[in-house]
Formats: sequence, C-alpha cells, structure tokens
Amino acid sequence: MMRAHTDRAYEHQLSQLRSAVLEMAGLVEEQIGHAVTALVDRNDKLAQETIERDHTVNRYDVEIDDLCLKVLALHQPAARDLRLITTALKSTTDLERIGDMAEHIAERAIELAAEPPIKPYIDIPRMADLARDMLRRSLDAFVREDAVMALGVCVSDDEIDRLHDQLFRELLSFMGEDPTTVSRAMRLLFVSKALERVGDHATNIAEMVIFMVKGRSIRHLDRVPRQL
Amino acid sequence: MMRAHTDRAYEHQLSQLRSAVLEMAGLVEEQIGHAVTALVDRNDKLAQETIERDHTVNRYDVEIDDLCLKVLALHQPAARDLRLITTALKSTTDLERIGDMAEHIAERAIELAAEPPIKPYIDIPRMADLARDMLRRSLDAFVREDAVMALGVCVSDDEIDRLHDQLFRELLSFMGEDPTTVSRAMRLLFVSKALERVGDHATNIAEMVIFMVKGRSIRHLDRVPRQL
Repeated sequence: MMRAHTDRAYEHQLSQLRSAVLEMAGLVEEQIGHAVTALVDRNDKLAQETIERDHTVNRYDVEIDDLCLKVLALHQPAARDLRLITTALKSTTDLERIGDMAEHIAERAIELAAEPPIKPYIDIPRMADLARDMLRRSLDAFVREDAVMALGVCVSDDEIDRLHDQLFRELLSFMGEDPTTVSRAMRLLFVSKALERVGDHATNIAEMVIFMVKGRSIRHLDRVPRQL
Repeated sequence: MMRAHTDRAYEHQLSQLRSAVLEMAGLVEEQIGHAVTALVDRNDKLAQETIERDHTVNRYDVEIDDLCLKVLALHQPAARDLRLITTALKSTTDLERIGDMAEHIAERAIELAAEPPIKPYIDIPRMADLARDMLRRSLDAFVREDAVMALGVCVSDDEIDRLHDQLFRELLSFMGEDPTTVSRAMRLLFVSKALERVGDHATNIAEMVIFMVKGRSIRHLDRVPRQL
C-alpha cells in the first residue's frame, strides 16, 4: 500500500489544519489586544464587541477537532505528522482558554470604566504585548516545526511572571493603604492574572511543539511511573 | 483487511489507556483533597508533600500522550474509538492543570498557616468536595461513555461558581473593613478561584465526553466560520 503521506489530498488537509490553527491563534491574539485596548481607553463598546466575538473562537475549536479526526480517520499519519495532528488537537484547548481570558479582561474593563482609575495602566499593556508576542512565536514555531524557537517562548514566560508578581505587590499595598481601592485593585489583579495565564498557555503550546519536533527524547520517560 | 478493533492487542491498549486516564484523575483528585486538608488543618508537612507530588501528575501526562500516539500509529481506530483516544489526549491537559491547582492551593496553605486565620474555612471544603465530585463524575462518564452523566457535571458547575462568587464578595468586604486582612483574604480568594477552575476543568472533560459519545451532532457546525 502506498504511504498515505504521499497523497495530495492528505497534504492539503494537513495544510488546512495548520492554517486553521494559525487563524484561531490570530483571532485570540487580536481578542487579547482588543480587550486590553478597551481597558486602557475605557472603551465599553470595544469591550462588549470583544465579549461577543468569543463564540467565534469556540467554533474554531470544534472545527479543528473535526479536521483532526477526519485526517486521523481517512489517512494513517505516522511519526511526525501524527504528532503534528495531536499537537493541533491539544493546542486548541490552550487557544480557546486564551479566548476566555480576553473575554474575562473585557468584562473587567467594563467594570473598571465605571469607576475612577486608581493608577495609570503601564504594566498591563506591557504584559499584554509580551503575552501576544509569546503566542505569535509559539505558533510560528508550530508551523515551522522549530524547537529552538519554541524553547525561546518558554524562557520569556519568566518575564511575564515577574511583571505579574510586581504588579501584584503594588496592588496589595494600594489595598492595604486605602480600602476604597480594594474592588478596583482586585479587578486589575484579575486582568494581570489573566495575562499571566495567556503566557502560560503560549508556553504550553511551545512545549508541545518541542515534543512534536523532538519526539519522546526531551520528555523524561526514565521517570515514568511503573503502573503505566 | 480485518478491522483493527477486533484485535486483542488493540483492545488491551484501549483498556490500558482508560486505566491510565482514570489513575491520573484519581491522583489529581487526591491532590486537591490533600491540599485543602493541609489548608484547613494548617498542616505544612502535608502541603509540602502535595507540592512535591505534582511531578508524578506530569509524568502521567507524558505517558498518556505516548500511549495515544502508539494506538493511533499502530492501529487505525475509527469513529467512536478515535474519539475516545482524542478525548483522552485532550483530557490530560485538564487533569494536569487540576494538578497545578492542587499545588497552587498547597502553596497558599503554607503561607496562610504562618498567620492567624481570618475566618473558619467552611465554604472552601464544600467547594473542594463539589469540585472533586464533579471530577469523579466526569471520569465515570468518560469510562462508561455516558453523555447523560457528563451533562450532569456541566450543570453542577453553576453551584461551584455561585459558591466562589459568594466567598469573593465576603472576602472583599473583609478587606474593605480591615486592611490588615488584605493579604490573607487575597490568598483565600486564590484558593477559591483555584477550586472554581477545577470545576471548569471537570466541565471541559464532561463536554469532551459528550462529544465523544454523540459525535458532531451536539456541536454547532451550522455556525462554523466560512474560512474553514
């Protein structure tokens, strides 16, 4: 039997799959951008639009899963292609959650726009830029099957964690000094936490890309429990 | 060619896969239980053990992925079996994050044990019980391929969200009335949020089980974007 991966229909489906994952990632990256812009500009309309657009993200999730199932069922992908497909399957979970984070930030933006600001938003846009950049690079690494690029994403995660910790401490002292800031500081903290989680999701995708490219080697099978 | 699913080795691997997913779920459920017990009993040793055991959870993730790849590569599972395998692949992400939540709660338990309690922990153990129950039921539904049971999990998620919102409001008023409680209230809030996320992860698994059992029908392909 001719190997399935020489099949043109198969190649077409793999390329469709890559495009769909990229489109979904582009969409959630844009959603994060819009949510943070809505926060900074106190723009309720943009925040509302961001919230409403989340269902589009969820449709991609369904469609990519279906596409993966179709490729798996119709062809018998092996080795690296198989890992590409399972990486796509698993990445949609992270991308969908990034979409949820954008919705979450947009909701906080609406609440915060109803009250006077407690501080200028400088760190939040920086965190957002960093998180979006990590996401873009993790997807570039996925498409190019580039483990080194993926590793760079994992390293960047420390920086976003550091910014989150710094903002957390700052907001904690705001709340301690002036109890009237508590609910606003909490909401800002949720935004910061959401951006930190976007970084975590990008890192998860990057780690899966490393696995996809390198196979078992970088994961520690010598430490796997006996029961398995 | 004989259908792969009549193969005994194949059946054995599928049953191995189900067992591994159940074991991983049992482990993270126990981790959540230990973390919350450590918090309530102010037991640093138990908290520390919980944190250290998280690496065992992560090994399951790797091993289940490998098992899925092996089954996909060696056999050509179709339809429902294929959905079983992809559900297992995707569920490990949620299980692994539940493990992270246990670690996160255990870290907060250690911090909180170093200071006087601000309130008796009544809601937190209730939320933990509910979250663990949802997790158990989502996995039962996975093994039994029971969509109705899975749907019940999704319904329970509202209750845990309600408890989280209630505790959130309560802690907010603590912080507003007495700024010295801010850092402790924040840590408790993180614990509550972590348990709420455990509920979300159980719900994700349950939703995937519904898809696994019912196929495309319950997801809304009529609303899929044109580009796909």
